[in-house]
Amino acid sequence: MASHNIYDDPDFLAGYSSLKRQVHGLDGAPEWPVLRTLLPDMAGRRVVDLGCGFGWFSRWATEHDAASVLGIDISTRMLERARAETTATSVEYRCLDLDVLDLDPRSADVVFSSLALHYVRDLDRLMSTVSAALVLGGSLVFSVEHPILSAPTSQEFESSAQGDRIWPLNNYLVEGERVRNWFVDGVVKQHRAVATYVNTVLDTGLIVDRIVEWGPSADDIEARPELADGLHRPWFLMLRATKPAT
Amino acid sequence: MASHNIYDDPDFLAGYSSLKRQVHGLDGAPEWPVLRTLLPDMAGRRVVDLGCGFGWFSRWATEHDAASVLGIDISTRMLERARAETTATSVEYRCLDLDVLDLDPRSADVVFSSLALHYVRDLDRLMSTVSAALVLGGSLVFSVEHPILSAPTSQEFESSAQGDRIWPLNNYLVEGERVRNWFVDGVVKQHRAVATYVNTVLDTGLIVDRIVEWGPSADDIEARPELADGLHRPWFLMLRATKPAT
Repeated sequence: MASHNIYDDPDFLAGYSSLKRQVHGLDGAPEWPVLRTLLPDMAGRRVVDLGCGFGWFSRWATEHDAASVLGIDISTRMLERARAETTATSVEYRCLDLDVLDLDPRSADVVFSSLALHYVRDLDRLMSTVSAALVLGGSLVFSVEHPILSAPTSQEFESSAQGDRIWPLNNYLVEGERVRNWFVDGVVKQHRAVATYVNTVLDTGLIVDRIVEWGPSADDIEARPELADGLHRPWFLMLRATKPAT
Repeated sequence: MASHNIYDDPDFLAGYSSLKRQVHGLDGAPEWPVLRTLLPDMAGRRVVDLGCGFGWFSRWATEHDAASVLGIDISTRMLERARAETTATSVEYRCLDLDVLDLDPRSADVVFSSLALHYVRDLDRLMSTVSAALVLGGSLVFSVEHPILSAPTSQEFESSAQGDRIWPLNNYLVEGERVRNWFVDGVVKQHRAVATYVNTVLDTGLIVDRIVEWGPSADDIEARPELADGLHRPWFLMLRATKPAT
């Protein structure tokens, strides 16, 4: 079954394009300074960017001397803009569905994905493809919406019976589809527990090096007070894994 | 700073001893069938049981042919009962604080801990001690209260603004002391995020093999309907790690 592609919906795309992280790129994403620390040096590496969107990371990788970058996205509209904004010939964009993606074995040094894997229905298949595509010693680095964020029925903070600001968590262990209203109605995401992300990666033979449950730093909150709720429930889950050398 | 030892408080101990898992032992603990699957074969192994309490697991290990079992707990009262109920000479109990514990390097094949590490203040120190105590190829298996459970101000499910049953999550990323009323007032636990448990283990050089966010199965809920809330927020976090052979 194909991944849900809301990104070619003009109304969705208009709203999405207005996000700070789409106006300002990586520097508009509050989690980027941390996500960046998980990445290996790009110089001379063959990089794959799963769910590349407008190509912000693909361009960053090539600006940091990646040997080649393959940006993959399901949205033709997003790739049109990505291509228009990319001059480096070391970047190639392909319109492909991550749920049926094939990659050549041992063809990539680094596989990266920002906020795309929570749309993928068959994560087992994709992670097996990624693991096989990595060279020995190669790295996988990804971020997804944190499962505490994706789980509950309600997506709004509220006040508890005691008057505390709370995130109304439920159904954390009930994995599967979540239909959200985000710029438009009916955006379909896949909720998985933290353990499922970790174990799915481990099951492909990769070694998990680090996970991050991203929340705002004191500096982040000072610069953008609306981020403070991120201390109550992490916004993003990040994971770095390595293909063992033997 | 020493770990908080509420377990020698007579009122606490009376309440705690009435828990199903203390009346019926491992078979009274709903998570035991899953935790057990994380364990290696005990036969011929030198096992350390951190926070052994009444010795349920220590006895189980020796009944499953462990070569030796060292049960460690801070509570003299719990160890009195553990000793009284243990006949096997291969089990030794020692009254020690996990926050200042020393273990001989490469002296253990398996280190196990059930629901004790969320009392430990200096997890970095303890995990380093454990890692050094393991032989090459040795295993660490532990469970703790899940961080989603330990984080929030309130420890009671409630109804959301929309009428859904919810766990009122807050302060997930605010790590540190949590003072709870559990049989008695003032029980001090240490809240840490899932990522902190995982990364603390990784930082000692162990390889994380598997994590589990434990919730009830359909059979568990049929047998004990009060467990159903465990689908909304996991009750336990479990982790298995291995000391790499090289």
